[in-house]
Amino acid sequence: MRIPAHIGIIPDGNRRWAENKGLLKEEGYERGLKPGLDLFKLCEEIGIKEITYYGFTMDNTKRPSVQALAFTKACIEAVKLLCHEDASLLVLGNTDSKMFPKELKQYTKRQVFGKGTTKVNFLVNYGWHWDLSRSTDKALKNQNDLLKTLYSSDISRIDLIIRWGGRRRLSGFLPIQSVYSDFYIIDQYWPDFQSQHLYEALEWYNKQDITLGG
Amino acid sequence: MRIPAHIGIIPDGNRRWAENKGLLKEEGYERGLKPGLDLFKLCEEIGIKEITYYGFTMDNTKRPSVQALAFTKACIEAVKLLCHEDASLLVLGNTDSKMFPKELKQYTKRQVFGKGTTKVNFLVNYGWHWDLSRSTDKALKNQNDLLKTLYSSDISRIDLIIRWGGRRRLSGFLPIQSVYSDFYIIDQYWPDFQSQHLYEALEWYNKQDITLGG
Repeated sequence: MRIPAHIGIIPDGNRRWAENKGLLKEEGYERGLKPGLDLFKLCEEIGIKEITYYGFTMDNTKRPSVQALAFTKACIEAVKLLCHEDASLLVLGNTDSKMFPKELKQYTKRQVFGKGTTKVNFLVNYGWHWDLSRSTDKALKNQNDLLKTLYSSDISRIDLIIRWGGRRRLSGFLPIQSVYSDFYIIDQYWPDFQSQHLYEALEWYNKQDITLGG
Repeated sequence: MRIPAHIGIIPDGNRRWAENKGLLKEEGYERGLKPGLDLFKLCEEIGIKEITYYGFTMDNTKRPSVQALAFTKACIEAVKLLCHEDASLLVLGNTDSKMFPKELKQYTKRQVFGKGTTKVNFLVNYGWHWDLSRSTDKALKNQNDLLKTLYSSDISRIDLIIRWGGRRRLSGFLPIQSVYSDFYIIDQYWPDFQSQHLYEALEWYNKQDITLGG
């Protein structure tokens, strides 16, 4: 079996889970801790070499503060759990902001725990624009100015991406305009396009909540 | 109904379609022309304001030349068809390379055709790295150096992204490391994580061909 060398984990649905259980939205996050550790151990067994967890983003911190507090606490606890594993651990995110928890500052340089077998990256107060802005170019320091530096600057943010042919990947398609896009995959090959495909995609899109990362 | 303002179209599966019909792989591309025009007209009717078509990429041009010739020809014809529509049309891609068809150079400045109602972007010899490299920063001119300018430079290319909670989007997750990643979506919420989810994702990944955009 071909095993991915590096997997990205987007552990979404904590708030919806809590609501379904009749709990407060913010109570969902701590229930994501055990899954994160279980997943780590499974990947270790399987031999996956690198895991990146999507903790929280700069966008997420705009949510109600009771939620921001809860997901921050869950991330701190998750990192502490991972320190007891054989992990080479890096916490990555914008430490210049007050939303970055001081408890995690010590993990922002990669450290080896135990045998350090699995490389673990944990994103905390991460921002895609922040990530690109380390460059020495002044134009990259501001989100709107960054968009202007693209050759594709005349192409706006994409709401919905429809891909024919069943593959579930971007293949390098406009990485900046797609940061918040919804993806809809159609299994049929493109030459077999039918209007129905577009209608299906639009019906599906109509039911998605649009948060632009928030 | 909430209609997306801008949709991205990844018209994949032309070669697989041709193979299934007992044709040569390269014969699939011209069969993608009518679908592209049909889709444009549907979007126009529905009131979608902007469409971006993924024509071909700099990565794609590394394929056998008979295929590169065929998809280039199909893109030239597709653009010519769109010129007869009410489109504000831009062809975007790296014109410095000999893989950019000279027939399309005249469309690399946005032009209004008919009433110009729908904004159409058609990517031809596009590259995600090329797109980011217009910046004045020298470090962005080379793909490896660009990766080094990221805050996340210690995080490698991601093979598989698994998202829980049913949403089909990246939400700003590492846009550069995910340009070629395969996405697997699990409808269950993250607190309901089960080992089976990971196994399913890995089984699915095992069946994907990995082309890194090629």
